[in-house]
Amino acid sequence: MVEWLGSFGKSKSNGVTRQLYSTEWRCAQKALEKRMNKIGLDVYFDDVGNLFGRLTGSRENTTTILTGSHIDTVIDGGKYDGAYGVIAGMIALQYLYETYGLPKKNIEVVSLCEEEGSRFPMTYWGSGSITGVRTIEDVQNLVDLQNISFIKAMQDSGFGQGKYRQPKRNDLDCFIELHIEQGEVLEREAMPIGVVSHIVGQKRYEITVIGESNHAGTTPMAWRKDAMYVASGLIQLLIQRAKETNSDLVATVGQLNLEPNIANVIPGKATFTVDIRHSDEDVIDQFSKKLFKEFQSIADRHTTDLKIKNWMDEKPTKMCEKLIEISELILTKDQIPYKKMASGAGHDSQMFSPFCATSLLFVPSHKGISHSPHEFTRTEDLEKGIRLLIKLLYELAY
Amino acid sequence: MVEWLGSFGKSKSNGVTRQLYSTEWRCAQKALEKRMNKIGLDVYFDDVGNLFGRLTGSRENTTTILTGSHIDTVIDGGKYDGAYGVIAGMIALQYLYETYGLPKKNIEVVSLCEEEGSRFPMTYWGSGSITGVRTIEDVQNLVDLQNISFIKAMQDSGFGQGKYRQPKRNDLDCFIELHIEQGEVLEREAMPIGVVSHIVGQKRYEITVIGESNHAGTTPMAWRKDAMYVASGLIQLLIQRAKETNSDLVATVGQLNLEPNIANVIPGKATFTVDIRHSDEDVIDQFSKKLFKEFQSIADRHTTDLKIKNWMDEKPTKMCEKLIEISELILTKDQIPYKKMASGAGHDSQMFSPFCATSLLFVPSHKGISHSPHEFTRTEDLEKGIRLLIKLLYELAY
Repeated sequence: MVEWLGSFGKSKSNGVTRQLYSTEWRCAQKALEKRMNKIGLDVYFDDVGNLFGRLTGSRENTTTILTGSHIDTVIDGGKYDGAYGVIAGMIALQYLYETYGLPKKNIEVVSLCEEEGSRFPMTYWGSGSITGVRTIEDVQNLVDLQNISFIKAMQDSGFGQGKYRQPKRNDLDCFIELHIEQGEVLEREAMPIGVVSHIVGQKRYEITVIGESNHAGTTPMAWRKDAMYVASGLIQLLIQRAKETNSDLVATVGQLNLEPNIANVIPGKATFTVDIRHSDEDVIDQFSKKLFKEFQSIADRHTTDLKIKNWMDEKPTKMCEKLIEISELILTKDQIPYKKMASGAGHDSQMFSPFCATSLLFVPSHKGISHSPHEFTRTEDLEKGIRLLIKLLYELAY
Repeated sequence: MVEWLGSFGKSKSNGVTRQLYSTEWRCAQKALEKRMNKIGLDVYFDDVGNLFGRLTGSRENTTTILTGSHIDTVIDGGKYDGAYGVIAGMIALQYLYETYGLPKKNIEVVSLCEEEGSRFPMTYWGSGSITGVRTIEDVQNLVDLQNISFIKAMQDSGFGQGKYRQPKRNDLDCFIELHIEQGEVLEREAMPIGVVSHIVGQKRYEITVIGESNHAGTTPMAWRKDAMYVASGLIQLLIQRAKETNSDLVATVGQLNLEPNIANVIPGKATFTVDIRHSDEDVIDQFSKKLFKEFQSIADRHTTDLKIKNWMDEKPTKMCEKLIEISELILTKDQIPYKKMASGAGHDSQMFSPFCATSLLFVPSHKGISHSPHEFTRTEDLEKGIRLLIKLLYELAY
């Protein structure tokens, strides 16, 4: 079924490109709609293109247990990221219905329209619309690289015209997301399941070192204000401090740009990003504060100027303790080894978490590879995840 | 006169843009031709656009003493780079002629058509054509950024059609180039004149560190193969080694590019340039050899791959000892302080040096600034340079 869904938007390199409101995206949602219908679910879209399949609870005026993940992918991404959570939800609902009939509470599987932000500069559009964090105003002025507006793309897909129900929900009891880890921890530790306690917080900074651009041949070493040299010292320090500070903290310099970036000119300016993540905001803050003090003294020692700009500040998100406990009970009873862990990546769960009880569950990613055609999870691991989901939904809804 | 010549191709920022075979370049050469005629020189172009003004020697079948520099500039460059050497030569020839009449040997001033390589990927086109190192075959397939071919640009300027004499010369006795230092050494040491002993050799390398691109959130620090981290360690080492090795050695990382260069992805690949210069080739070679051994062990320690590619290897060029001695005698006699020094930048002199006795003489550059509208040399320093040139030409030709 992973292969089947992966065929919508299959790329030349055997990956998947299924961007929001593209033809491939539309075909995939339509195919899922058909399949949900076939297994006996009540199926409907909302007006941003989220697709739901529902087992209606037998209790009157009851709340809804929602499970699922996102259907969009990055360009040339994998078959599992997002898709696995949607497929797992459908299989779970089918199994529960066929085995136990209708639940007491409503259970719904959702194929969220968008999470990756890979077409428009907008992430979590699906989950954000359901939880009311995102509204139509947020996308009013967005365009993609082909200069197609968000609104036009949405309307061309048949959404955003009031034909379907409004996305904001008030009946959600909890949200359960099954996802691939996108890291290598579970595989290395031979754990088939990860029970996520937190999604880490992340702060991103732009660091600019301003030195003096000069001739590479006529400027003696002692007189230089070499922005690249100073920047390389800061990067060395950052990574060393990150390694020694806390085993769960990660810090990355993913982007660096020099000016003028010419082989025979001493760089006058070096700009680089710093991405720092941890599940405890205080750890990030203390680490950054201490680090940037050291940055400043290095810059001062080389008589270069330093600018530090914080441009992203995502708070850590705690998953629901009660749902974690239920998962742990199920796993212990079934003798499935698991790891309670933080998620280093962002997920739709972080939009749901402040809104309703939320649980994020991982299966291993082979070699940690994700956002790549080489994304892979073994079938037995996929199955273990679905079995856990089934039992968890049963506990909550029957 | 510097201001007058600088008016041809004057840029908005009060700099000069006078690229090879441009309208500005053509106007400047035509204006120089007129001025050379006016001061009584025999004036002629060669077929690549080098402009010569000649005082014909009284001896029969005598050789020629050539002085001058280049007329082309980088984009938004300064008024002094190249131009000073041309102007100084004209003033010197005028003074010598008016004071002493015709010399025994021929003396010529040359306004070389091109040195900078800032329009086409070709440097030293003027001096290279005179010395036979460059020929028409070398420029046959070159185009500029506007896709105009070298040949077409040359022909549109009236050259390259056999209308003028062939550029290759066999009558040159020596070449004397007066130039701004383009560095800060003379100013800092309060020396009005630099007598150049060598033009340094330079080797340029492209260093590639290949690590593993991975998710910045889900990959623990201990498992990373971070190409940026490893590269920053190599850069730190390079600069530290350069500082401690030899006070005359300079090493520069001017260019660095990451892949994929995205804030939330650990760089899988870092490519950077290394530019190493010294007047002794052995010093460069020993330094590089030792350094790259250390590079390799750092890369190995982080289990990253390392590629080292040498893409430029310019040998050091020695200036003529005898001409240096004559300059030193003149300066000592006139009680002008001077510094015998290496040139960290390349000059037309390095094309002439293997071909005929060659001397390169510097005047100070304020703050070492060059290739910039802020290029500046004090009038009294310009004058000291011209006085030295006059006396040197007198020694050689009268």
